[in-house]
Amino acid sequence: MKTGEIRMSKFDKLVTNAAGRVVPTVINSKPAVPFKGIGKFKPSGHKTAPPITTCADYPADGNKVVSSLKEALLKCGLTDGMTISTHHHFRNGDRVALQVFDAVNEIGGKEMMWFPSASFPCHEPLIKYLEDGTIHHIEGSMNGALGRFASEGKMNGLGVLRSHGGRYQAVQDGDVHIDIAVIAAPSADAFGNANGVNGPAACGLLGFALADSQYADKVIIVTDNLVPFPCIPWQIQGNYVDYVVVLDQIGIPEKIISGTTQITKSPDRLLLAEWTAEFCDEAGLIYDGFSFQSGAGGTALSIGIYFADILRKRGWKARFARGGSNKYLVQMLEEGLTDYILDGQTFDLEGVRSMRDNPNHVNTSPFTSYNYHGKGNFSSLVDIVILGATEVDVNFNANVVTHSDGLLLHGIGGWQNCLFGKTVILPIPLFRDRIPVIRDEVTTLCGPGELIDVIVTERGIAINPRRTDLIEKMKGSPLPIKTIQELKGTAEQICGIPEKPELTDEIIAVIKWVDGTVLDSVYKVKE
Amino acid sequence: MKTGEIRMSKFDKLVTNAAGRVVPTVINSKPAVPFKGIGKFKPSGHKTAPPITTCADYPADGNKVVSSLKEALLKCGLTDGMTISTHHHFRNGDRVALQVFDAVNEIGGKEMMWFPSASFPCHEPLIKYLEDGTIHHIEGSMNGALGRFASEGKMNGLGVLRSHGGRYQAVQDGDVHIDIAVIAAPSADAFGNANGVNGPAACGLLGFALADSQYADKVIIVTDNLVPFPCIPWQIQGNYVDYVVVLDQIGIPEKIISGTTQITKSPDRLLLAEWTAEFCDEAGLIYDGFSFQSGAGGTALSIGIYFADILRKRGWKARFARGGSNKYLVQMLEEGLTDYILDGQTFDLEGVRSMRDNPNHVNTSPFTSYNYHGKGNFSSLVDIVILGATEVDVNFNANVVTHSDGLLLHGIGGWQNCLFGKTVILPIPLFRDRIPVIRDEVTTLCGPGELIDVIVTERGIAINPRRTDLIEKMKGSPLPIKTIQELKGTAEQICGIPEKPELTDEIIAVIKWVDGTVLDSVYKVKE
Repeated sequence: MKTGEIRMSKFDKLVTNAAGRVVPTVINSKPAVPFKGIGKFKPSGHKTAPPITTCADYPADGNKVVSSLKEALLKCGLTDGMTISTHHHFRNGDRVALQVFDAVNEIGGKEMMWFPSASFPCHEPLIKYLEDGTIHHIEGSMNGALGRFASEGKMNGLGVLRSHGGRYQAVQDGDVHIDIAVIAAPSADAFGNANGVNGPAACGLLGFALADSQYADKVIIVTDNLVPFPCIPWQIQGNYVDYVVVLDQIGIPEKIISGTTQITKSPDRLLLAEWTAEFCDEAGLIYDGFSFQSGAGGTALSIGIYFADILRKRGWKARFARGGSNKYLVQMLEEGLTDYILDGQTFDLEGVRSMRDNPNHVNTSPFTSYNYHGKGNFSSLVDIVILGATEVDVNFNANVVTHSDGLLLHGIGGWQNCLFGKTVILPIPLFRDRIPVIRDEVTTLCGPGELIDVIVTERGIAINPRRTDLIEKMKGSPLPIKTIQELKGTAEQICGIPEKPELTDEIIAVIKWVDGTVLDSVYKVKE
Repeated sequence: MKTGEIRMSKFDKLVTNAAGRVVPTVINSKPAVPFKGIGKFKPSGHKTAPPITTCADYPADGNKVVSSLKEALLKCGLTDGMTISTHHHFRNGDRVALQVFDAVNEIGGKEMMWFPSASFPCHEPLIKYLEDGTIHHIEGSMNGALGRFASEGKMNGLGVLRSHGGRYQAVQDGDVHIDIAVIAAPSADAFGNANGVNGPAACGLLGFALADSQYADKVIIVTDNLVPFPCIPWQIQGNYVDYVVVLDQIGIPEKIISGTTQITKSPDRLLLAEWTAEFCDEAGLIYDGFSFQSGAGGTALSIGIYFADILRKRGWKARFARGGSNKYLVQMLEEGLTDYILDGQTFDLEGVRSMRDNPNHVNTSPFTSYNYHGKGNFSSLVDIVILGATEVDVNFNANVVTHSDGLLLHGIGGWQNCLFGKTVILPIPLFRDRIPVIRDEVTTLCGPGELIDVIVTERGIAINPRRTDLIEKMKGSPLPIKTIQELKGTAEQICGIPEKPELTDEIIAVIKWVDGTVLDSVYKVKE
């Protein structure tokens, strides 16, 4: 509890929410609802709706191409204080967000809210626009330098971190109104139909930009690969698009697609992977027709390979695997070890190829997979979900955005959304740089412990006491099943009791829960 | 002008619109805007938006199956006076709409508005529900017996006929609020993902139900082919779906897919086809990379075959062909004579197979193709559009819904939307059953003459005087180019001057234009 630490604040009012965290009730001048517990907040009202347009105002020949980003922004009626969105399918190879705000700056626009689906180290140059007032603040993950900038209390507004699903929810529900969406597309036609499977900046799909296309007042497609109508598949539909801009380069291919994603060679990480797979197998979570989501890190990839081995040996197959996809998952699909890949982003060229050519490699979106304010979503249908964390506490609460020194360096991604999977497992090292990962309390709460089932470390495995079924099944297992307190004790024996981060009482960002309520606050670090 | 004929009416107010037609300004107790001219009506406000839902209210395991249509309707909160929608992808083989209203009747529901994307002769049994008050009125095309029922003044409310695009517009803009959408799906999973490409009732796609899924308060999927999650492709997304019902049979395959669509053998119709193709060629409308939409009638099919011959001979290909698809169009795609089929409905099993297996056979929807209140749509991008008509007048205005005796027997379909193609050609016989098709004035105005470019009859071809470019190009053509008055004269020489239909002054239905304004009224016929 940080309540005692709070002495003064620039916020109207702070309250302690249902998770016991102190959060503001007004965020960037808009009222906010504190977290009420999982599934407890019941939304009311209707979804947001963009203005009605008419074909009479659009070119009959379908040609929406204008000469520059600047022209497109001006035609969109760029005004100070607008919200401008971009997507992050190009990851650290994005060449568009900078060009957008260069154009905004050239026009003389001020006080914009940047609403990326995520930001990356490549966006560090935008700090100058945060400093000169072109950008007022960012709502979206701030990886690396931008996060540090915010952590040091230098950003004007409050950062708002949402999961992928939470971002869709926020847009759909009208919590965030996008004035202008700029959607970078590896292929597009002049009408605005667009996809991510073809072109020099191929990134697989454009699902993170779906909400932006559907709900923004104005939509600009930028591409470096204009194709004749129709651009097939139309992952983004031109009927939502106002203008198309052709640029020399929208992304740096080798930074979009790492091509280097490799399974881990670290003996400790390999052990985590092996124990995780073994745990799943012993607990009966793997069966003919099961489903899983593992992720793209070295440990996760290795877990996938163990899963594939088990399936192959028994003549089973998964019904579906959730991507982020990569060559290992594609191999499983092509070998017939899974019926489908349901994919939110492709992490390598094999993923892109497979999504382009294989109808069973299906592109998904935060709408299908993660939006909590839908009529269900896919996340709760997944049997086994493998996730990471920067910290876990003794109540299984977890943190993914700050380090133990309090610095905000990561986004939430789909992490919160995936917590709704049937069994959520966090294979994590017991300590990093001699700092224990399991603590009395997480620096920042991103995921309530009741949704996290198993912690796998290199010194033992802890099962959430709520999962009596798993505890029962693992009785007599050769695996080192421990309590979470035991794991914490082991870490502290080795590394000592970790110090609390040195934080001020100034809130610089908030963590939204999947339903739009405020789960926790992120504090300015001490100089 | 029918002004003189109107003496009394049950409507609050009648006005003469920009097309010179008398129309009501209140329709089924809601205000209506009279037609203002093409592209003249500028909509304001925002699209409609369904209620915000939460995953907390839906089953975490994704299983939305309930035991019966009745249970699903009750769970949806069925109340008297609601609007219930269905789609017409099963055409005259639909087995769902009847079962829906049987269930409504069993529940004791009254005064429903039925909002089908189209109705067919198979729906004749619903007349009993129009008579007993289960259904108050129908908004949607009324083919055959239902149209005759309305024409005789027997339906309570006013029929509202919309094009496919107009239906999407009406739903999107909130002109029609769907309380409960019932979407029949040849394949679906328990989560509600659904498609039309697999299963005993395969119909190819479900595009006509897209708006219903997106905008209805409650959505019910009915299927006779429940598959394990995920149902791929998900043409309808389960995230929009509330309940899934499994029925024994949702459609009669041989009536969904005719399998008998054949090119015409009538010498007159073949002549129409030949002249139409020749006209297009001489006028330079066919080129390497052109696009066309012809339709599924015998004449239209023959025109497509002529087009294919021309392409093959010159080594050209179409960039895209619009469907309704059939085996002839599929042959063109497979032979490489067109890059893509952009398809709104599949008319035979070859169309279904191709859509299922060929990624270049692309399913479209009224949103992509026809919605006039979008940011453009595909219809204005098509080079050559071939359409039919029941009547054409000397100003090139055309009718597709009533016969010359005034009976309302057909729907509008995508006809109005297709009028926005670059060149619109109507190959029609000069007379049918010795009744001239070209008249001084159409019985019902469905398409303003300024959008209709060429009339091809077996006695000559008339070019709309507005198309000076075509008139210029066809100078010296061996084809029998005439004026429309000449064609009318020829018909009257042979058949005599046609009599006006015997109509009362009672309006029984209205024709909406693509922008939601009221284009014309349909009158009760005299007993």
